[in-house]
Amino acid sequence: MTLREEALNMHKENRGKLAVKSKVAINDKRDLSLAYSPGVAEPCLEIEKDETKAYMYTMKSNMVGVVTNGTAVLGLGAIGAQASLPVMEGKAVLFKNFADVDAFPICLNTTDPDEVIKTVELMAPTFGGINLEDIKAPECFYIEQTLKERLNIPVFHDDQHGTAIVTLAGLVNALHLVKKTFAEIKVVINGAGAAGIAIVKLLHYFGVKDMILCDSKGAVYKGRETSMNKEKEAVLAYTNKDNQTGSLREVMKDADVFIGVSLKDLVDEDMIRSMKRDPVIFAMANPDPEITPERAKKAGARVIGTGRSDYPNQVNNVLAFPGIFKGALAVNATDINEEMKVAAVHAIAEIIDKKDLHEEYVIPDPFNPQVALAVAEAVSKAAIRSGVSQGECIDQQ
Amino acid sequence: MTLREEALNMHKENRGKLAVKSKVAINDKRDLSLAYSPGVAEPCLEIEKDETKAYMYTMKSNMVGVVTNGTAVLGLGAIGAQASLPVMEGKAVLFKNFADVDAFPICLNTTDPDEVIKTVELMAPTFGGINLEDIKAPECFYIEQTLKERLNIPVFHDDQHGTAIVTLAGLVNALHLVKKTFAEIKVVINGAGAAGIAIVKLLHYFGVKDMILCDSKGAVYKGRETSMNKEKEAVLAYTNKDNQTGSLREVMKDADVFIGVSLKDLVDEDMIRSMKRDPVIFAMANPDPEITPERAKKAGARVIGTGRSDYPNQVNNVLAFPGIFKGALAVNATDINEEMKVAAVHAIAEIIDKKDLHEEYVIPDPFNPQVALAVAEAVSKAAIRSGVSQGECIDQQ
Repeated sequence: MTLREEALNMHKENRGKLAVKSKVAINDKRDLSLAYSPGVAEPCLEIEKDETKAYMYTMKSNMVGVVTNGTAVLGLGAIGAQASLPVMEGKAVLFKNFADVDAFPICLNTTDPDEVIKTVELMAPTFGGINLEDIKAPECFYIEQTLKERLNIPVFHDDQHGTAIVTLAGLVNALHLVKKTFAEIKVVINGAGAAGIAIVKLLHYFGVKDMILCDSKGAVYKGRETSMNKEKEAVLAYTNKDNQTGSLREVMKDADVFIGVSLKDLVDEDMIRSMKRDPVIFAMANPDPEITPERAKKAGARVIGTGRSDYPNQVNNVLAFPGIFKGALAVNATDINEEMKVAAVHAIAEIIDKKDLHEEYVIPDPFNPQVALAVAEAVSKAAIRSGVSQGECIDQQ
Repeated sequence: MTLREEALNMHKENRGKLAVKSKVAINDKRDLSLAYSPGVAEPCLEIEKDETKAYMYTMKSNMVGVVTNGTAVLGLGAIGAQASLPVMEGKAVLFKNFADVDAFPICLNTTDPDEVIKTVELMAPTFGGINLEDIKAPECFYIEQTLKERLNIPVFHDDQHGTAIVTLAGLVNALHLVKKTFAEIKVVINGAGAAGIAIVKLLHYFGVKDMILCDSKGAVYKGRETSMNKEKEAVLAYTNKDNQTGSLREVMKDADVFIGVSLKDLVDEDMIRSMKRDPVIFAMANPDPEITPERAKKAGARVIGTGRSDYPNQVNNVLAFPGIFKGALAVNATDINEEMKVAAVHAIAEIIDKKDLHEEYVIPDPFNPQVALAVAEAVSKAAIRSGVSQGECIDQQ
């Protein structure tokens, strides 16, 4: 049986992948009177007086909404809300499986960013956090930013930050191996969509001074007149300090790190050879990387990560989002902020003991059960430290 | 421990009542490649080509959205979306427990009916049906009607139809006992909110010719100038044929059946005594009925139903909604229409063998496990018969 047949059969046999589960038994009138009328009125009245009590008495405390509008689904593009449901169910299954976080797919039949924002705002009472998923750039930035401002629950666009966090974790460990620091490296990022922009922002937060973002038109620079948008303009404040205008090939010269979230085969051996000593390559185009690990290695790359499970150092978001939301929910956080993302980066990187680090092991295995717990703990602490936890007011009740 | 304490503890210990559950195991890379990338692309592409395939490959096939805006929650009134969440979770728990239907609460932070409509429209891809819940009248009528027109999945406002269906089931059996027919009885319905209006409509569908709807101003009649609305006007087409203008007390004279969905103590013994022989009383005000069964009995009532579990003949919606949605979902129905509601009425009524019928047993016990299955089967058949099933096109695949 092909993977295609097996995948279709699996989805068909189970009629999807997600179900709900009751946490309480309803076997007799007494059970009914506690879980439903009249007993259920009691938690309702408590929450009416103080909305934060919803974290104490309802599923909100562990429930993430996985929200998409189906405009950038996997590598499939704008397949629409209905067709995106298998992916969103899959995402919810990963939340449950990797971190025991309850998550539920909400597939919105609209391409209007303001309709997405309005809908999520209205349905927020159900959820303790919102994972935005597979929403195309640049709308994804506006949607996430606006919702973060308007809602008092965390909003996290995984295609941006999940990828950025795991990439940075890999980079922390790779830099340790090649004995370089964030402050001294030159990084070239190819791909200015959701993930590329988020990676640039997080690299800046980690102290990278010398980086150039590229897209299909080459380097993004001040004064460029084609294919610009607000996000590309914004990152120019701390990228491309010499305002280079060249192609990817040109700007990769003397780089220490290449990060690709673009398309297959855009990088060749000569480009790797033009980099500084011990090149670090994260070639994450899906399903085929910007350069295969075999070719990159041959050209002298020292550490190579991809998006694929059949090569070492897989940059898999599942290392980040389950633990991040688990940590945020554990303290009833109102936001997932930069401090929490950085905490997640270090927690993922530190899963690998320094003595075990090597070229083919800078990112932990996605099935390592320690990861989600370590990430959750680090994220919870960072939430408390940075003042976005509501956990204490809840616990005092 | 009081009921209040026990209910609060139960909700707190479990942090709510609902969780999600994965229907598939994710233990290794192979599982991941089937449930998520890259295998998940296959059902996505199938659904992109033909949206009805969502019933085959996703949770949509068994998933109901329980949607409220928190404007008429239990007897608590407009407590808001966040405070309504325990009730909606409870409703979802009942769906799961009584019919193995997956249901998920969506609590909408708005009192604007058009915002409720728009939100439900946008999120419809996730769900195979929508159960509207605890939305106040008269907005509930407009919201339900508009969504029924716009969506190709069933929309069912349980506060209207659930109550109406179970009441009618009880009435079918009660009329059998007192040897009267729908065509010959006079019915007085007190309460012109969601349930009252729906009961009147369903009584009309069952052939009742002589009925009067009352509200706090007395009989609803043509030309009345206070407290009217579109729904009250609409039912005048087939109620109050003599256009009576009196009080509840006045119009109850010579009635065969009284149905109350109003407030406690509005009916006294004299009013019962003024009715025709063998009065049938459904006094469903919550938690205290329009007249207690003890007093109604003393005044000569023959059959008495209430909303309470501590009296015989409890009109409990849980007898209807789990099986109705189960039946609708089983055939991928696009609607829950009148034929399906009538089928549910008869299925519930027929759970009780004619030989077992008596004054204190015209409505089955809510915990009778046969009910949901019998209702589901009858509703599925009615959906196919009335042409709102998409089941056949699905099964042929």
